[in-house]
Amino acid sequence: MDKVHLINSTTPVQKLNYKIGNTNIYMKRDDLIDFAFGGNKVRLFEYIAADILKKNADKIITFGSLHSNHVRVAAVVATRLGIQCDIIVLFEDSVDDNSIPPNLKLVSYCNNTHIEYCETRKAHDFIDEYLAEQNSLGINFYWIPGGGHTALAAQGYREAAIEILEQTHGINLDAMFLPCGTGTTQAGLINGLEHKVPVYGVTVARSIERCHNEIEYLLKQMTASAATNYEINVLPCEICYGEENSLLNTTILHLVQTDGIFLDPVYNAKSFLTMTQFISNHPELKDVVYINTGGSPNLF
Amino acid sequence: MDKVHLINSTTPVQKLNYKIGNTNIYMKRDDLIDFAFGGNKVRLFEYIAADILKKNADKIITFGSLHSNHVRVAAVVATRLGIQCDIIVLFEDSVDDNSIPPNLKLVSYCNNTHIEYCETRKAHDFIDEYLAEQNSLGINFYWIPGGGHTALAAQGYREAAIEILEQTHGINLDAMFLPCGTGTTQAGLINGLEHKVPVYGVTVARSIERCHNEIEYLLKQMTASAATNYEINVLPCEICYGEENSLLNTTILHLVQTDGIFLDPVYNAKSFLTMTQFISNHPELKDVVYINTGGSPNLF
Repeated sequence: MDKVHLINSTTPVQKLNYKIGNTNIYMKRDDLIDFAFGGNKVRLFEYIAADILKKNADKIITFGSLHSNHVRVAAVVATRLGIQCDIIVLFEDSVDDNSIPPNLKLVSYCNNTHIEYCETRKAHDFIDEYLAEQNSLGINFYWIPGGGHTALAAQGYREAAIEILEQTHGINLDAMFLPCGTGTTQAGLINGLEHKVPVYGVTVARSIERCHNEIEYLLKQMTASAATNYEINVLPCEICYGEENSLLNTTILHLVQTDGIFLDPVYNAKSFLTMTQFISNHPELKDVVYINTGGSPNLF
Repeated sequence: MDKVHLINSTTPVQKLNYKIGNTNIYMKRDDLIDFAFGGNKVRLFEYIAADILKKNADKIITFGSLHSNHVRVAAVVATRLGIQCDIIVLFEDSVDDNSIPPNLKLVSYCNNTHIEYCETRKAHDFIDEYLAEQNSLGINFYWIPGGGHTALAAQGYREAAIEILEQTHGINLDAMFLPCGTGTTQAGLINGLEHKVPVYGVTVARSIERCHNEIEYLLKQMTASAATNYEINVLPCEICYGEENSLLNTTILHLVQTDGIFLDPVYNAKSFLTMTQFISNHPELKDVVYINTGGSPNLF
């Protein structure tokens, strides 16, 4: 499959000083991907960008939350390809100049980007109307679902799975953990690992059922044969309402103390914490990989 | 010389799509150093940390500006070593909760850190009194000059210079460029390159003369023999008052367009811009290395 090379060097797999009982944790440092502040979305966009070029599109249109890695990378990719980018940013309550997160400040460096704000509850209609208008203007746009949730994009993590297996050659991996948003990254990993290592996604936003269904949907699209019977594991996020900040800050601090790594609070601190609790209940796991999917602008 | 390993993987040297005439630019991605949001200061602290352990210090005391990479890394290193860290943060006019930069927000995740604010013009007396008080309390503290400006710390970039030469083996490098703050990084590079490649520091704060003297001072300390006659090149920053934001934003945008790399505005956008102007006047340079010294929190 074609791809545009956005990433220039292989990200490290680092054995952490941080341990849980006798379980070794290896971190895939995709937060250090060398394009647009890194993160998992860059891998997805290597495939999406090739498709955009193939279709000769003049513009990317996509949407995401204020903190979305996806919208940041979409804007930078459009800038790199020399095309326009319209981003529909969803917010829950209100947004003003003071609440614009650092993530979108980066987007503002890209001079080809137009941002529309829309309340999450009105998103469906807003997007329908927006795309209809662009169509009526005859604009050859390329629509990307939120999070880059397509089977094409998931190829990026099929490839990453193979890379991780090579990098951990000689280690008998018992499990792989990662945050789960739309499930694209998880679907790619599951596909690439071919039943060799169980993958546990920790949902940071959606219901377990919805994540499961989305991952299953992509896996079916990715495989020609239907008889793959992939195991799909989605864990709930082990943070109760009210304790969020203190537990997340403790998690972030702990990993800074042992390894000097700052986990982003939106995706990775939540899923890393959930992983530690899961491992405490499963001490039989000896060697696990945690995928740091980036999102460092969310720390600020 | 002893060091504490804070860095787990070698940072890439990346050939940029960005070109100036026929000059190829290779970027050393020290912004991707895998500890504490990276940047050049981590290399310096590998040596400083070993010295702290050797002296059994209970506390680091240091100072720096609001945007200083040095203070961020100092706080994280102290956390990693399990000791206290007192940071004297210098500001020009005033500072309040709303003007605390992202860099210091990261420091606030480290629970062992105490911050004192001090106006730059009062810094000298303030620091003298602060250290005298700590002494009178019998605290075994380790004092680090701003920027980590010591010959010991400069070893980190002596080592980096050797690493870069290995990574660019087969390429005849004509020059190396980097931002120059206190000159520690530049002194280390000059020492490590042993006259093989001329190094051009772009001063982002101090006078050329002061940078020159500081670099010369460190180089004399680093070499046993006095007869080294190192060439010290410090370039002025080619940005006039008033045009700062627009020129810097254009520089940042340009590199985002070609390579998806965000330069920090305080150190790297300024020095990268100055390098491009220098190369335009010296088209005989065919292959140059630019050291991206990090500081990405300053983008937010």
